[in-house]
Amino acid sequence: MSAPLILVLNGPNLNLLGTREPEIYGTDTLDDIRVVTERTATQLGCTVDFRQSNHEGVLVDWIHEARGTAAGIIINAGAYTHTSIALLDALKGVSLPVIEVHLSNIFHREAFRHTSYPGRAAVGVIAGFGGQSYVLAVAALANLIKTAA
Amino acid sequence: MSAPLILVLNGPNLNLLGTREPEIYGTDTLDDIRVVTERTATQLGCTVDFRQSNHEGVLVDWIHEARGTAAGIIINAGAYTHTSIALLDALKGVSLPVIEVHLSNIFHREAFRHTSYPGRAAVGVIAGFGGQSYVLAVAALANLIKTAA
Amino acid sequence: MSAPLILVLNGPNLNLLGTREPEIYGTDTLDDIRVVTERTATQLGCTVDFRQSNHEGVLVDWIHEARGTAAGIIINAGAYTHTSIALLDALKGVSLPVIEVHLSNIFHREAFRHTSYPGRAAVGVIAGFGGQSYVLAVAALANLIKTAA
Amino acid sequence: MSAPLILVLNGPNLNLLGTREPEIYGTDTLDDIRVVTERTATQLGCTVDFRQSNHEGVLVDWIHEARGTAAGIIINAGAYTHTSIALLDALKGVSLPVIEVHLSNIFHREAFRHTSYPGRAAVGVIAGFGGQSYVLAVAALANLIKTAA
Amino acid sequence: MSAPLILVLNGPNLNLLGTREPEIYGTDTLDDIRVVTERTATQLGCTVDFRQSNHEGVLVDWIHEARGTAAGIIINAGAYTHTSIALLDALKGVSLPVIEVHLSNIFHREAFRHTSYPGRAAVGVIAGFGGQSYVLAVAALANLIKTAA
Amino acid sequence: MSAPLILVLNGPNLNLLGTREPEIYGTDTLDDIRVVTERTATQLGCTVDFRQSNHEGVLVDWIHEARGTAAGIIINAGAYTHTSIALLDALKGVSLPVIEVHLSNIFHREAFRHTSYPGRAAVGVIAGFGGQSYVLAVAALANLIKTAA
Amino acid sequence: MSAPLILVLNGPNLNLLGTREPEIYGTDTLDDIRVVTERTATQLGCTVDFRQSNHEGVLVDWIHEARGTAAGIIINAGAYTHTSIALLDALKGVSLPVIEVHLSNIFHREAFRHTSYPGRAAVGVIAGFGGQSYVLAVAALANLIKTAA
Amino acid sequence: MSAPLILVLNGPNLNLLGTREPEIYGTDTLDDIRVVTERTATQLGCTVDFRQSNHEGVLVDWIHEARGTAAGIIINAGAYTHTSIALLDALKGVSLPVIEVHLSNIFHREAFRHTSYPGRAAVGVIAGFGGQSYVLAVAALANLIKTAA
Amino acid sequence: MSAPLILVLNGPNLNLLGTREPEIYGTDTLDDIRVVTERTATQLGCTVDFRQSNHEGVLVDWIHEARGTAAGIIINAGAYTHTSIALLDALKGVSLPVIEVHLSNIFHREAFRHTSYPGRAAVGVIAGFGGQSYVLAVAALANLIKTAA
Amino acid sequence: MSAPLILVLNGPNLNLLGTREPEIYGTDTLDDIRVVTERTATQLGCTVDFRQSNHEGVLVDWIHEARGTAAGIIINAGAYTHTSIALLDALKGVSLPVIEVHLSNIFHREAFRHTSYPGRAAVGVIAGFGGQSYVLAVAALANLIKTAA
Amino acid sequence: MSAPLILVLNGPNLNLLGTREPEIYGTDTLDDIRVVTERTATQLGCTVDFRQSNHEGVLVDWIHEARGTAAGIIINAGAYTHTSIALLDALKGVSLPVIEVHLSNIFHREAFRHTSYPGRAAVGVIAGFGGQSYVLAVAALANLIKTAA
Amino acid sequence: MSAPLILVLNGPNLNLLGTREPEIYGTDTLDDIRVVTERTATQLGCTVDFRQSNHEGVLVDWIHEARGTAAGIIINAGAYTHTSIALLDALKGVSLPVIEVHLSNIFHREAFRHTSYPGRAAVGVIAGFGGQSYVLAVAALANLIKTAA
Repeated sequence: MSAPLILVLNGPNLNLLGTREPEIYGTDTLDDIRVVTERTATQLGCTVDFRQSNHEGVLVDWIHEARGTAAGIIINAGAYTHTSIALLDALKGVSLPVIEVHLSNIFHREAFRHTSYPGRAAVGVIAGFGGQSYVLAVAALANLIKTAA
Repeated sequence: MSAPLILVLNGPNLNLLGTREPEIYGTDTLDDIRVVTERTATQLGCTVDFRQSNHEGVLVDWIHEARGTAAGIIINAGAYTHTSIALLDALKGVSLPVIEVHLSNIFHREAFRHTSYPGRAAVGVIAGFGGQSYVLAVAALANLIKTAA
Repeated sequence: MSAPLILVLNGPNLNLLGTREPEIYGTDTLDDIRVVTERTATQLGCTVDFRQSNHEGVLVDWIHEARGTAAGIIINAGAYTHTSIALLDALKGVSLPVIEVHLSNIFHREAFRHTSYPGRAAVGVIAGFGGQSYVLAVAALANLIKTAA
Repeated sequence: MSAPLILVLNGPNLNLLGTREPEIYGTDTLDDIRVVTERTATQLGCTVDFRQSNHEGVLVDWIHEARGTAAGIIINAGAYTHTSIALLDALKGVSLPVIEVHLSNIFHREAFRHTSYPGRAAVGVIAGFGGQSYVLAVAALANLIKTAA
Repeated sequence: MSAPLILVLNGPNLNLLGTREPEIYGTDTLDDIRVVTERTATQLGCTVDFRQSNHEGVLVDWIHEARGTAAGIIINAGAYTHTSIALLDALKGVSLPVIEVHLSNIFHREAFRHTSYPGRAAVGVIAGFGGQSYVLAVAALANLIKTAA
Repeated sequence: MSAPLILVLNGPNLNLLGTREPEIYGTDTLDDIRVVTERTATQLGCTVDFRQSNHEGVLVDWIHEARGTAAGIIINAGAYTHTSIALLDALKGVSLPVIEVHLSNIFHREAFRHTSYPGRAAVGVIAGFGGQSYVLAVAALANLIKTAA
Repeated sequence: MSAPLILVLNGPNLNLLGTREPEIYGTDTLDDIRVVTERTATQLGCTVDFRQSNHEGVLVDWIHEARGTAAGIIINAGAYTHTSIALLDALKGVSLPVIEVHLSNIFHREAFRHTSYPGRAAVGVIAGFGGQSYVLAVAALANLIKTAA
Repeated sequence: MSAPLILVLNGPNLNLLGTREPEIYGTDTLDDIRVVTERTATQLGCTVDFRQSNHEGVLVDWIHEARGTAAGIIINAGAYTHTSIALLDALKGVSLPVIEVHLSNIFHREAFRHTSYPGRAAVGVIAGFGGQSYVLAVAALANLIKTAA
Repeated sequence: MSAPLILVLNGPNLNLLGTREPEIYGTDTLDDIRVVTERTATQLGCTVDFRQSNHEGVLVDWIHEARGTAAGIIINAGAYTHTSIALLDALKGVSLPVIEVHLSNIFHREAFRHTSYPGRAAVGVIAGFGGQSYVLAVAALANLIKTAA
Repeated sequence: MSAPLILVLNGPNLNLLGTREPEIYGTDTLDDIRVVTERTATQLGCTVDFRQSNHEGVLVDWIHEARGTAAGIIINAGAYTHTSIALLDALKGVSLPVIEVHLSNIFHREAFRHTSYPGRAAVGVIAGFGGQSYVLAVAALANLIKTAA
Repeated sequence: MSAPLILVLNGPNLNLLGTREPEIYGTDTLDDIRVVTERTATQLGCTVDFRQSNHEGVLVDWIHEARGTAAGIIINAGAYTHTSIALLDALKGVSLPVIEVHLSNIFHREAFRHTSYPGRAAVGVIAGFGGQSYVLAVAALANLIKTAA
Repeated sequence: MSAPLILVLNGPNLNLLGTREPEIYGTDTLDDIRVVTERTATQLGCTVDFRQSNHEGVLVDWIHEARGTAAGIIINAGAYTHTSIALLDALKGVSLPVIEVHLSNIFHREAFRHTSYPGRAAVGVIAGFGGQSYVLAVAALANLIKTAA
């Protein structure tokens, strides 16, 4: 039996990571995070499909594709976290465990960043630990997948 | 003289129809709805161009293309109903009769689904009848087109 | 077996129709609408009991009377749409399919007309098509009655 | 000296009691409640005039009539609880002790049912005990009447 | 040519005037006010039809009847001032000059009495002068009628 | 005994009257209004001191000066109606009857014009009758002065 | 079989009763209320454990202790009514019938006293009857216990 | 040394310019505006890259591309002005001077158009001058670039 | 024919410019700004009347005086921007083109500085460019004057 | 070296002190307060410049004049406390320690008096002690001046 | 006759003073403040009972104990200032003069710190002067006690 | 060198865990969670001090004690999460890394549970994974401690 696949989705501007507002987001690039995420997944017997897009519609398409292929989704929807009901509906439409991650603690930032639509479809949220948020999320999701299996 | 063309636009996640949250949306697929929509249009002497996209920008583009080709628009903007001012501006920009449809009665759902931007550009709204909402909308739009002719 | 009865209720000031603010409500009188509503019902094998009252209590009484006699209710509660919790409770108390209709698109009007209490008890809403809103509602209700039968 | 009269007023839809939404309101009919209310009053040396109307104006009229005849009022204004300033003014206009009753705990229901206009004119409120709310209210009112005498 | 007719409408609880909360409303009865209102109207060449009802529906009916008979309406809608969109629609439906009157300055009272629906259909408002509010309103309305003639 | 003095105060921009936004304020100049105000006062045995200023502080000073000289104040505070707590405090500080007037019905205008600070210190308000608002206010104030004498 | 135990909990400042703001709370002391509460319970075959604390945590502890010993809880949480989610969670955690009581009608007081957290876990509420609120609550709770037995 | 490049971004529906709601946006097409924008830039020693897209994600991509190539950004985000936090984050992520422009004064329009996310990342805003808003923005940006050089 | 006159009005505390909070407003004095404003006007064939006052009433008076003398107004109302409805009414009363300017981007500051009353009477707004805001405003106004001529 | 100068500013209507609403403000006149303020200052080695104006602009002018002459400012802005952003900006513009005083506890009064703009520029606030508020403020300011010296 | 006793109460976290967030609260410890508070009291013929607790219930208990022993209360309730209605009720229950003190100006901090429940029971408030706030409060309270004696 | 100590604090009602509302909180007891938390800490070279209290003041005291003994704090403040500013101030007062944990995703619950005061002092938040939330938090905190060492 093959290793369960975890789809890790990254939303708009996360491709700039490591160069943009480092006092908020740190100096790790998204590729650095991909590496530690994959390493953790491998250790826990999972594989990772790690993607980024600035397009809300593309993120919705990718979530749809996860049906039948992925065992769970980790999503950092970036700015779409606070505005995209479409992402919420997509996540609810694909009956998979979802974990919301954020690099920073979104409740330390502007009020318009305190709302999360994807979070309404998520089992849980992990926020504030930089790239470690992804590592913890993989651990949590692997545990959920094992329990459900 | 050729049959008037009705552009029927479907927004994000409506491609999942029939599989996603059936207690809210029913078990008809979007293709089932296309079939009954087209059948009603044919009976009323109209043709239908029935499309779906998860991309807000694509929906805006399609509305622009309707100028000069379509006689009216029926739109179920899905989650973009509640967030897309761009769709509102596009609909207002193309001087065609617009009817807003929804499968469910959006006022029975979460508060953030009670706002409609496309509805501000629509002649009327038909919501709550599942696939029949489209059938009724075609009837209403055919009537409006005939009256205006 | 006798034809199913549809109770069509009209709230305050709808008796003025055709004379009052025609730029919003059109020039059809309520009697004109009664005629086309009855004609549609007949075509679909239903009968119609078409009433109007300016008294909230009378409308509540009529809804109560519908139990055991009517197969469904179409209601245009006029101004009571926005203020009458009593109508909502009455509709919920009589276990019949309810369709809310409006002549105009109420979301194009003042903010205090955007709330609907009867709509909370309705299967669906049809608004913005003048007298045609009633015709479409009869079609929708006849379909619901047939499906439930 | 004759027994003090307690006017018990019931607002819209309470005549449906026992048949409507029993999971909220229970299976007792309004007549069942009348019986236990009268029995309690008799035990405490009072008489009861027990009425129901779906008409706000009729309820106002009845409150006016209580002046000079009743020793106190128990009111379950139903849906008018949340919308009728006219009932509040009527109750304030007749200088009698008033007790507000509800079958259910209105604070467990929709937000629009959390406001009470009659409650602003009431000595106290008893809510959540089904028909027992009336029995307790009669006990409380009999006590108030005795104390004031 | 006959004297123009002024319809003076009084809403719920105004029949209690002179006995209810005199620190707010004074000791004049509604009949006292009718007398001075009629006297002023006579002096200005008008007649008065002075009515009171506790029923919102009755007030709506009376406004409808004014079409074709009255030259203008003075309305003190009492508590319905703050809750009745039906009265607003009725007043807008009868194309007559309307003046809103109040015995007290409603802005000195509870916040829920600061809204006026009939006021949205009125030329002007006169509030705070007790029975004199009616006298001033007759003077203002007589002037408007004369100017429009 | 000399005739009672009525201080009539006009706030910012009322000096433009007759030239500014005539569709809202009409074509009468402030001087035209002064003339009819004085004429009415004379008929009722009063004199008038009619002033206008664009300066909030000057209006406050004038209200202070009214103590011991005027028998009452009529104030159209213009835009300061909605922003000046200082005017409210001044009016409350001089123990005189105050009547608030407006040319237009301020509740037909933008929401930020619906608040009145001077109105909190006023016996009553007369709004919507153009220059006639002043005439009616003089009549009301003369009556109040006579009653209090 | 022993008599069912009713735990009666009183929150902060209720120990001052009879001395503090008598115009709101009356002159009965908390001990006076304990006496009548116990007397009523005895008449209805119940026993009472009557306590007061100014400490939120102590009240939570006492609610926990009620599990397995008490048959129901009557709570007047005083000021913690409006601020303590911890009390709400404690009451929900102990699966016992709960009745909320208040000496005064809390809706006659400041707006910040209109919210009740314990009330969200209560079957019903009795407010406004001074010490009698407790007597009525014992009667209601004894009835609930008997019905459930 | 080559001329500094100014990236001019236009959001959804601006391609309809000159045909859509001319009473708000005027009759100039977007191409007309491009011409005058380029002419002004040339006079000030700058070059212009003038683009339009209906896709939020495309606009985000284009902002990212500006890093290392453009000296500043002028953005008219159209409807995305009011909904796109993603655009705000993109602009903040590319450390370039940004000027927000609008054809109309957005504060004269519906309330939901009064918020600007891109404006939070902009040095300044120029709104209300039709195509001239772009000309003024180029002048302002050229000045900022020169000062910073 | 003489050069068109531009009235440039500066509100409270702008006389402190260059000394007050330079991190927000820069180090230019108001006189520095006057010089560059006049220079730009001269280049464009206009003359400038440049004034400052800390008194709301004086600013209103000056706007009134502009009728018949000035061809347009540029206004930086300082703190009165957010509180003065009187300035709005004055600007609307003098039928001249108005441009609102600000040194800083007011939307980067405290929430109570996000409202603009004068802006409701302005053709457009230019904010965030320090003294350059005035230079750009003169250019924009000169263009408007020329176009209207 | 001369004694440090304390500027004490009093806003609108404070000249009425001792005569206006004594139940709120007490019977001391402003001159009585000036005397005790000066006496305290003398005891602490300071001098006082004690002023009052009803004009917002005059108060702004006086604050500007304090630069270079006064060592600190005590301000009771009266009604301008709640409306004047201009006073806030003036106080922030003159880099002096500021203490806000009030005769009454403003939080016991109407909600619109709970905001303080000058308070945003003040080191601290002293409210509720009548004329003693000024005496305490002089003591506090003398201490601040000494510490800073 | 013994010296009047002043109870000085300090709420949660004030025991950390001098170590916690010194940029807001300064470097004085609570013991330093106790010393200067006692010294001032002694000079004014009063004694001080200076306490601190992190427990809301303990603070309520201490206020109750003050009845009959203390002549007044000075309270810095720390974080309970913004959340404790229980403290408000306790203070109102003990009929003693109360002064609220704060080290910092609470209106310079987060919005959730702008509300004060104890302040509703206080004669006045002194905030923003660090340990001097206590010294000034003792002076003010000694004066109130003397005046009342 | 000894193993770093992690203080794990549990707020009100968490002692009921495993028995209370298992559909929300699961069937693990708090002791079960203590065991897995300690096991994880041991594996990562840390020790754990695991406590629970229903008393807000006790939780504050415990946080104070952590200074100088603990290397970091994990806190599940239960209901105090949403109401305790005192806990926030305590956490900010003890310069240690803090992680907020919750068993459930608090954003799936009632609106009054969406606010977190302790979260404002926390590096990050982990919510929704039942007892695993603690395990993940220990991993995250051990990592933070190691990085900071």
